[in-house]
Formats: sequence, C-alpha cells, structure tokens
Amino acid sequence: MNAIYALSFLTAAAAFLFAVYLYFWVKKQKVENSRIEEVSHLIAEGARTFMVREYRSLLYFAVPAAILVFILLPEPIWRGNIIENIQMVVAYAAGTILSAIAGRIGIMVAALANGRAAEGAQKSLKSAFLIGFRGGAVMGLLVVGASLFGIAAILMLFGNPSIILGFSFGASSLALFAKAGGGIFTKTADVAADLTGKVELGIAEDDPRNPAVIADNVGDNVGDVAGMGADLFDSNVAAGTSALVIASTLASSEDAYAMVLCYSLLGLVASMIGIASAKVGKDGNPTRALNSSTYVTTAIYLVLTALATYLIDGFEWRIWIAAATGLLVGVIIGITTDYFTDDTKPIVKRVAKASSSGPAFTILSGISYGFISALPAMIGIAVSALVAYKVAAPLGDGYALFGIAMSAVGMLSIVGMIISNDAYGPIVDNARGLAEMGGLGEETLKVADELDSAGNTVKAVTKGFSISAAGLTVISLLGAFMSEANAVLSDLGKSLIAGFDIMDPTVFFGMLIGASVPAVFSALLIQGVDRNAETMVAEIHRQFNTIPGLKEGKGIPDYNKCIDIATTGALKELVKAGLFAILATFAVGFIGGPASVGGYIAGNIISGLLIAIFMSNAGGLWDNSKKYVEAGNEGGKGSDAHKAAVIGDTVGDPFKDTAGPSINTQITVVSLVASLFVPLFAAFSIF
Amino acid sequence: MNAIYALSFLTAAAAFLFAVYLYFWVKKQKVENSRIEEVSHLIAEGARTFMVREYRSLLYFAVPAAILVFILLPEPIWRGNIIENIQMVVAYAAGTILSAIAGRIGIMVAALANGRAAEGAQKSLKSAFLIGFRGGAVMGLLVVGASLFGIAAILMLFGNPSIILGFSFGASSLALFAKAGGGIFTKTADVAADLTGKVELGIAEDDPRNPAVIADNVGDNVGDVAGMGADLFDSNVAAGTSALVIASTLASSEDAYAMVLCYSLLGLVASMIGIASAKVGKDGNPTRALNSSTYVTTAIYLVLTALATYLIDGFEWRIWIAAATGLLVGVIIGITTDYFTDDTKPIVKRVAKASSSGPAFTILSGISYGFISALPAMIGIAVSALVAYKVAAPLGDGYALFGIAMSAVGMLSIVGMIISNDAYGPIVDNARGLAEMGGLGEETLKVADELDSAGNTVKAVTKGFSISAAGLTVISLLGAFMSEANAVLSDLGKSLIAGFDIMDPTVFFGMLIGASVPAVFSALLIQGVDRNAETMVAEIHRQFNTIPGLKEGKGIPDYNKCIDIATTGALKELVKAGLFAILATFAVGFIGGPASVGGYIAGNIISGLLIAIFMSNAGGLWDNSKKYVEAGNEGGKGSDAHKAAVIGDTVGDPFKDTAGPSINTQITVVSLVASLFVPLFAAFSIF
Repeated sequence: MNAIYALSFLTAAAAFLFAVYLYFWVKKQKVENSRIEEVSHLIAEGARTFMVREYRSLLYFAVPAAILVFILLPEPIWRGNIIENIQMVVAYAAGTILSAIAGRIGIMVAALANGRAAEGAQKSLKSAFLIGFRGGAVMGLLVVGASLFGIAAILMLFGNPSIILGFSFGASSLALFAKAGGGIFTKTADVAADLTGKVELGIAEDDPRNPAVIADNVGDNVGDVAGMGADLFDSNVAAGTSALVIASTLASSEDAYAMVLCYSLLGLVASMIGIASAKVGKDGNPTRALNSSTYVTTAIYLVLTALATYLIDGFEWRIWIAAATGLLVGVIIGITTDYFTDDTKPIVKRVAKASSSGPAFTILSGISYGFISALPAMIGIAVSALVAYKVAAPLGDGYALFGIAMSAVGMLSIVGMIISNDAYGPIVDNARGLAEMGGLGEETLKVADELDSAGNTVKAVTKGFSISAAGLTVISLLGAFMSEANAVLSDLGKSLIAGFDIMDPTVFFGMLIGASVPAVFSALLIQGVDRNAETMVAEIHRQFNTIPGLKEGKGIPDYNKCIDIATTGALKELVKAGLFAILATFAVGFIGGPASVGGYIAGNIISGLLIAIFMSNAGGLWDNSKKYVEAGNEGGKGSDAHKAAVIGDTVGDPFKDTAGPSINTQITVVSLVASLFVPLFAAFSIF
Repeated sequence: MNAIYALSFLTAAAAFLFAVYLYFWVKKQKVENSRIEEVSHLIAEGARTFMVREYRSLLYFAVPAAILVFILLPEPIWRGNIIENIQMVVAYAAGTILSAIAGRIGIMVAALANGRAAEGAQKSLKSAFLIGFRGGAVMGLLVVGASLFGIAAILMLFGNPSIILGFSFGASSLALFAKAGGGIFTKTADVAADLTGKVELGIAEDDPRNPAVIADNVGDNVGDVAGMGADLFDSNVAAGTSALVIASTLASSEDAYAMVLCYSLLGLVASMIGIASAKVGKDGNPTRALNSSTYVTTAIYLVLTALATYLIDGFEWRIWIAAATGLLVGVIIGITTDYFTDDTKPIVKRVAKASSSGPAFTILSGISYGFISALPAMIGIAVSALVAYKVAAPLGDGYALFGIAMSAVGMLSIVGMIISNDAYGPIVDNARGLAEMGGLGEETLKVADELDSAGNTVKAVTKGFSISAAGLTVISLLGAFMSEANAVLSDLGKSLIAGFDIMDPTVFFGMLIGASVPAVFSALLIQGVDRNAETMVAEIHRQFNTIPGLKEGKGIPDYNKCIDIATTGALKELVKAGLFAILATFAVGFIGGPASVGGYIAGNIISGLLIAIFMSNAGGLWDNSKKYVEAGNEGGKGSDAHKAAVIGDTVGDPFKDTAGPSINTQITVVSLVASLFVPLFAAFSIF
C-alpha cells in the first residue's frame, strides 16, 4: 500500500512538472503584434476579474458550508468524534482550493496561449496547433494531478474513505460555481455581442468596436477552459471517491484501495504519454491529431492496467474488464456524439436543409435529433454498468458495485487527455479572434479557421464523453450513498437499506421529484442567461449612444463594464439554480428519509443524463448546421436558411454551453449533499 | 357482487341512452346556411375517410397482435389452458372494437355539432355553447360507458382480472393509432395550411381557397376529438384494470372488486349530472361554465363515494381517502397548468415580451417555462401516490398498491366530464371556421371567438389532468406488472420478485433505456409531422400552379388529395414510432428479464411524464402567447414580436397536439406489452 501511495505522489509530481515545462514552452513562444498583445492582456485581465469575483462569492457559500460540515459531518459534533469533523473540513477545503488553483493556473496559461497561437498560425498550422494544444494540456495535467494527489493524501493521512466525500464535495462546490457560473457568463457575453454586433450593426463577430467583445473572449476562457476543467476535476474526484467508499465495504479493502489508486495513476501516465505524442501529422489534419492522441492514450492505458493486474497480487482481472468496458464505452459514446454533431455527417446537413423551410423547422429538427442522439449514450451507460456489475459480482459481496465504480474510474482514466483536447478548443477559437483583430491576413485566418473547426468537432465528442462519465460516476455515488446511509442507520439502531425498491412509494416519490430537478435547474440557468444578456444589451446601447465616435471606430468602448455585468449577473443567477437543487434534496430527505433520497438520486441521474445529452448535442448540432450553411450550403450566408440557422444557434448556445454541461455538476452536487447529510435524513424525516 | 354488476350495466346503459338523447338534441338544431352545410359535409366525409383508413391499418396491426395474444397469452397455448387464451383474444378484440365505435360515433356527432354551433352563435352565445358542449358530451358518455361496460362484463363472464389486461391492451392499441396517428394528421394539415396560406399567400386561416383547409378542420376532429377520446378510454380502462389485477391479490378480493366497479360507476353518475347541469350562467362566461361543471362533478363524486363507503359493508374509508386524494390532486394539477398557459396570467405575457427580442428568445423562454411547469405536476403525482400508499397500507398485504390504483381510479372518475370539456374545444374551433366561411358576420364571429378562447383555456387544463391521470395509472400498472410477473415466476419455479431495486443493475439498465424511449418516440412523431407537412406543401403548390384561377377564388381545390396525404403519412409515421417503443420493450425484456422490464417501465413513466407535461405546456404557452400578441400586445399583429410568436406557435403545435399527449399512450402500451409478455421474458432472457 505504501508503494502505491509513493507512486501516486510521484506520478502527480511528474504531472505538475510536465505542466510547468509546458507552461514555459508556451511562454517562450513569441508575441510580436502589439494589438494582439494588448487584447490578450485585456482578456487575461477580464478572466482574472471574473475569477477573483467568482472565488469571492464562492466564499459566501463555502464558508457556511464548511461550518455546517464541521458541525454535522460525518456525525453531529455533539455525538461523534470531533477529530473526524476536523478531518472532514480540511478535506472539504482542500477539494475547493486545489480545484480553484488548477482552474486559475489553467486559465492563465490559456490566456497566454491565445495570442501566441494566433501568431503561430502565421508561421504554420503545425506550430499553432502545438501552442493551442500544449496550452490546454497544462490544465489537463494540473486537474488530474491535483485529483490524484488529493485523494491519495487524504486516504493516507486519515485512512477513512468517507472523509474523501468531503474532498469531493469541495470539488463539486467549486465546479458548480465554475461551470454553471462560467456557463452563464460566457453565453451572456456571446448572446449580447451577437445581438448588438452581428444583428443590429452588421459588424463582424470579433469587431473591437463592440463593448462586449472582450467579455465574449473572456467567456470562452472562463466557461470552456476553467469551467470544463472544474467539472472534470469534480467527476474525476467523485469517481475515485465512490470507488474508495465502496472499496471500504469489501473483504479485502486494502487490495481494492490499491487498485483504485493504481488504475488512476496509470491513467495519468497514459495521458502524459498521449499529450507528449500529440502533433499534426503529414496530412496536416488537426482533428485527426487530436483523435489519434486520444486513441493512443486509450491503448496505452489498457496495456498498462493489464500489466499491473497481471503483476500485482490481489488485483482482479474481472475488475480490469469492468474498467476497460467503461473506457471503451466512453470512446464509443464519443463517436456516436460525433455522428450527430459533425458537419461532414448527414444529421447536420438535414438540419441545415430544414432551415430552408424556416426557423421553426430548424428548432423542431434540432430538438428531435437531440432527443434521438441521447439513445446511444444512454444505452452505452446502461450496458457498461450492467457488464461491470455482472462481471465483478462473482468476486464476492459488494464487488458488483465496486465493478460499476471501477467502470467509471476506467472511463475517466484518460481525462487528462480529454481536458487537453477540450481546452484546445477555446484557445484556438480566441486565437482566431485575435488574428482578426491583429490584422494577420487572410492566410493566417484560414489556418486559424481550420484549427477552430477541429476544436468544435472534438469538443462535441469530449462533452458527450464527460457527461457519460459523470453518469457512470453518479451511479456509483448512489452505491456510496447506500453505504453511508447504512453506516448511519446501523448506528441509530434502525433497519438497514438493502436497496431502493421502485415499488416503495417513498422511493418512487423521490424519483419523480428527482427527475424534475435537472429540468428546472437547466431552465433557471437558461433564464439567467436571457435576463443577463438583456442587461448587457442595454449597456451596449448606452455606450453606443453616449461614447462619441464609437460606431465609427474612433471612441474606445468600456470593455470592463460589460465584463462586470456578465460577472455579477452570472453569480446571482447561478446561486438561484444551485440553491433550488440543494433545497429540493433537503425537502425530499426530510419528507421521505434515506429511501426517498435514494430514489431522488436515481431519478435525478436518469433525467439529468437525458436532458444533458439532449441539450449538449442539440446545441452542437445547431452550431455546426449554422457553420455548414455559412460554408455556402443551402444558400449560404445571408440566405433565409442562414437566418433560420442563426436562430437555431442562438437557442443552442445556452443549451450546450450553460445548461447541458452544468447538469453534470448539479447531479454530483446533489448526490454528495445527499451522502453527506444522510445522518440528518435518517434521524429526522416525516415518513 | 351481482348487485354491483347489475348497477354497472344499468349505469352504462343510462350513459348510452343519455348520449343518444344528446345526439338527437344536437341533430334537431337547425342548419340553414348552405355554404356551412356543404363544408360541414366535406369535413364529415374527410373524417370518415381518415377513420376508415385508420381502422383498416389498425387491422394490419391488430390481427397479428390478436394471433400472438391467442398463441402466447396468458400462457403459451402448448402449456396452458386454451380456454383462457380464447378469453384473452375476445377481451383484446372487445377493447379495440368498443373504443373504435365510441370514437366513430363521437366524431360523427362532433361533425354534426360543428355547423350547428356556428349557426347557434348567430342566435346567442348560450345556445351555441350548449350545442358545442353537448356535441362533445356524446363522446364523453360513450367512452366512459363503454369502458365501464367492458370491464364489468369481462370480469363477470371470465372471473379473472388478468384477462382484462387483454381488454386494456386492445384499448391501447387503438389509442396508439387514434392519438398518435390523429396527432400527426392534425398537425400535418395545420402546419401545411399555415405555411402556404398565412405565410406565403397572406390569406386567412380558414380561407376556402387553400386546398389544405378541409384537412385542417378534419384534423381538429380526428386528432382532438377522437384521439383524445381514445386516449382517455385507454387511461380509464388501464386504471380500472390495474386496480382489479391488484385487487385479485388481496385477502378480500371480492370486496375490492366491488369497490373498483362501484367507484367507477359513481364517477359516471357524477359526470352525467355534471353534463346535464352545464350551461352558461348570467355572466355569459363560457370558461366559468366549463369549470364550474367540473367542480360540480368533483363534489358530487366525493359525496356519492363517501355515501357508498359508509353504507356498504367491506368498503374501506382508507381507500376512499386514496381515491379522493387522487381526484383533488388532479384538479390542483389542472389549476397549476392553467397558471402556465392562460393568457391572463403572467407567464404567457413574459413569453410574449421575450418575443419582442426575437424568435430565439420566444423558444428559449417557452422551453424553460415548459420545464419549470412540469415540477408542480410531478410533485402532485408523487404526493398522491405517496399519500394513497401510506393511507392504504395499514389495511394489510397488497393494500398499499391497491390504494395507488384507486387513487388513479379516483383521478379518472370524472373523465366523462373531462372528455366533454375537451371535445367542446375542437367543435367550437371548427364552428368559428365555419362561421367565417359561411359569412355569418362580425357579431357571430365575436361570439364564436369567445367560445373558442374558452375551449383553448380549458383544453390546457384537461390535458394536464389527463397526463397526470395516466401517470398515476401507470404507476399502478407497474404494480399489476409485478403481480403478473410473480404469477408466472411461481409457475416456473423461479424466485419471486419482491420489488425492483434500483441498485440491481438489471433494473437500472432497464431504467436508463426506458427513460430514453419517450424522448425518441416523441422525436419520431415530430419528424413525422415535418416530413408529412413537406409532402403536403408540395401538393398545395402543385394545385396552385395547375388549377386555373385557384388563387383568385375561381377554381375549386382538390381537398381530398390533401386529406389523403395527411392520412397515409400519419399512419406510416406512427407505425415507425410505435414499433420502436414496442421493440425496445422486447429488447429489454429478453436481455434483462422481468426485473429489467420493471425498471424499464419506471424509467419510461418518469421521463415520459416529464417530457409529456413539458411539451403540452410549452405548446399551450406558445399558442396563447401568440394569441396574446395578436390581441394587440407587444406591437400586435404584423410586428416583429408577432413573427417571433408565430414561430414559437409552429414549434409548439407538434409538441402539444402530437408528441406530448401521445406519450401517455406510449407509456400505457409499453406497460401492457410488458405485463402481457412477461411469461416470455421470464422464460427466455440473457441475464
């Protein structure tokens, strides 16, 4: 066991060092264009402002939460062991802080990489690709390294996996702010910039006269880089945590702990090799470069874990099969997502064609394909859970659930690679904008466009992947919830929970409410974006009316005011949605007790996955249909089909970048709140 | 028990006689305007054509299904008792045929009432209201009478409630065709007529030059009158069936049978009184007239059942409470639905206001409020199931589930009244169109508009009601499924199912797949409407181009061709969606066995309810927002807000009239298929 701890810390340290190396590599790339340098600086400043404000608001949430955790968890302070309560608070704080640091550094590097990738595109596609990818990889390495380090350290220091739930809850708290808050920020700015710029004035997307343009670029960084990073940190920690909590119930729990940590660290090793090997090949195709490094990582992971399973005593082949199934299913889900959102495939073309009959048909076809696209992912998750369970069950009591948890660990093993791919997208997206603002010429713009398009394609895939991984993770969180509930119930001398029976109406009650929560949560986020965008549009109009010469490009817009509006609004709206989800959990817990909460989590997972996949894919589909029309199809730019496609894209924006991916975090937060507060639900509930 | 059978038949007979009386009452109202008579005739003919074709296609489905039922159910013919297989087939055929007859007659009367209500509106609002309402009430009385008669007869003749599952399956088969097929028909015609008429030519909605205008009117009858009737027949039968199946497992099953039948027949009695008492009061407000007769029916039902419970030995007050809770929750859900869709309430106004920022905001606000509107209904269903279960549980083993089933019976008790209200809507809608085509003058149109608006308001409420009732019904169908599964498993000597544990991955597997099915099913229906409307638009263009003088009002359009396209397309598209749902059930059953199917039904119910309520309410919300703008708000007709609101309405049309309400039927069909085929799943499944 000590060897495994040592290896975990070593691997995490290696990841940090690799990240530092990449940071300096990105930094030493040159920026010569002064306009690009200036705008890069504005973006970095805006991102910094948002994050400082975000972390400050987080304090208002995290400090009371920490106090509650200290008083109540793992057991009320007046009943339990105060040392454990202190450990829990430390774990909670560590989860929040580690995620915050990873996000902060990741964003800083992304902001550095933006401008450098733009200038790299002047030289060659290959070098611009490397700058964008390596800038993103810093985030990937930090996130996975911090997650491994945190889990291993807490387990080693406190020896009790239940404490890691606190770490996981800390990570989720931050993810809720980073993902949902960042998601509202980015779409507020995007929608407001488009409405006033493209629609009202007819100026280009990244025209510097628009006061919202910097906020829009900042949004790409805070929503897509930091938000996605925090989201996957959260999923990754949750997967590890639930595997460890379930492992603690097994006969040979030490072996199981070792296996969880070993598989996680091998995933990080595989991701590092994948990241180091990524480059654009002779064919000059950046999409292929991103995909092939994902496949390389997957293959290496499977080989390394097989080797470890063969060599190490107490590692079980059946668990390896569970983990491998999870990973393979994740890759397959990514491929089916691609089918529904890639503009070289038929679905995007059909939605573009429907647009020529008018916007209502753009919307109807996007919604219906979005719903259909959820089926393969749901089947994939269902099958991997079923296979993992059945294959692991013969190992003994509790192993079946452990199998599911390891399937989630397997699916998330290559997350370092996934984050790198994902952060690449917004970096090259911004690079394109900077290339335009810096006037780097048509040739450079073409290269930047190509890099950007690869980012969009890969983004849809990684989004499908991360939602599915979260799905599998929360299934195992349900197992962790049951373990926690039973520990509490046996302390209280109440009868234990053997499972959650659908025919038990307290369970069914919870399921119906739990299923409604993601729908309402996403609706609140969407309305938040709308309301916030309205405020920003009003501000932009004010600037155009009061700043002399602004429309003609002579005045200087007040970029900061827009960033300020996006920030304040995002945090306000997010709190509303987040509180709703948490209070609903409490309401169900205090009405129906632990059984209801089990049903609630299950209902939440099921409808949450469905809605999240639907929204992400429909949004990606509309976005790429618009791009497909803009590429000259169905009448091209300015045609009626184009107008309809733009409406589809506007509807899809908060779907895919705000609501859809935030549902992940909502599910994890709710599951963790439930696991943490189950002692209270068990002690005080109406039914 | 014999007294109860006799009373059931007597009540059913009284309902039939009442319906005959109302039929002659409607028939003796005069039609004098020849243009109205002519168009009425075209509509009646079109409806007849559709129904003949529909019933013929149904044969291709029903005959093979009947053969399968005969061979396999309740047990494979080579193993079981052939007499029971014959009984099952008879019940199946009876369910289909009774529903078909009720639908056919209901439509005929509706078609009679259309024109008469239009001319009645010339005289007074009161008399037009009565014609519309009584025309609809024929359908209501027939449906509930036939349902009561069928259930009582089968139970009396065969003495085995499992056979009634066959009856219920027959009703569902028809409902699938009538509701989903009718829903595709009506929206195909509506969308095609709007696109070519209102949008391209700028002519009025009911302009007779448009070749699709008769198909549009036919659609109102076949989709909203016959479809809704078949849907509620299906729910009503399913509620009674599941209550009886569960009753058969109770200690004093005879008392429980008597209670189910007695409560059902009292519901019919209450509805008859409510129908007889409906009239527009001194305030001249038709909405109030419709609502107050619903409340009268509710109150009478509660009093009558309380009386029966007090007087009859073996009737339990706890069961009365369960039934009363179901009914009251149904009424409350109706009221909350109204809040989200009524144009005097704030939500409709907010969506209208969002429309002034463009169509994307119409869509986003409609979708988000649609999602939020699902929450109260889901809570209502959850609470009534929980209360019914807890209140009935102390009566003994199995009574808890019986309580839920009786809660559904209670909610559906006033369904006679609900159908009357609901069928009133399309009748007065068509009356408005006929008044316009017949040139009955501004004053008459104003009266017709007022009647129509009441119909729209009440329709949203009854739709919410019927979806929730279906929700509660299928929860008890899940109980019926478990009873059936255990009967089979004990025959096979396998271990019985005590419940469906979410932590069992075969159950969870089923849940994930089951939850995806309503999403895909509704997507297929929406795509069916789109595809079909495209074909019809092409046909309308052909007619305008080839029939001389058509645009100028001199040529005569070929109305039948459009009806034909709508019919053929509707049946083709519906088969695709229906087969998908049924095959998914088989796939899950043969992979995971009965436990998976239990999870599958639960997942199907939960996501089905959520999506159905979302779609129905969002659709109603968009429709009324458009009307609100047309009434002169946010710039009124022709403004940008109006254009955006029209786009919202077009998206909402297939949501609220095709996909949303068809999901009900999909859930029932799937639950029944599962209950019927559980012997096969238990004998042959992979896991």
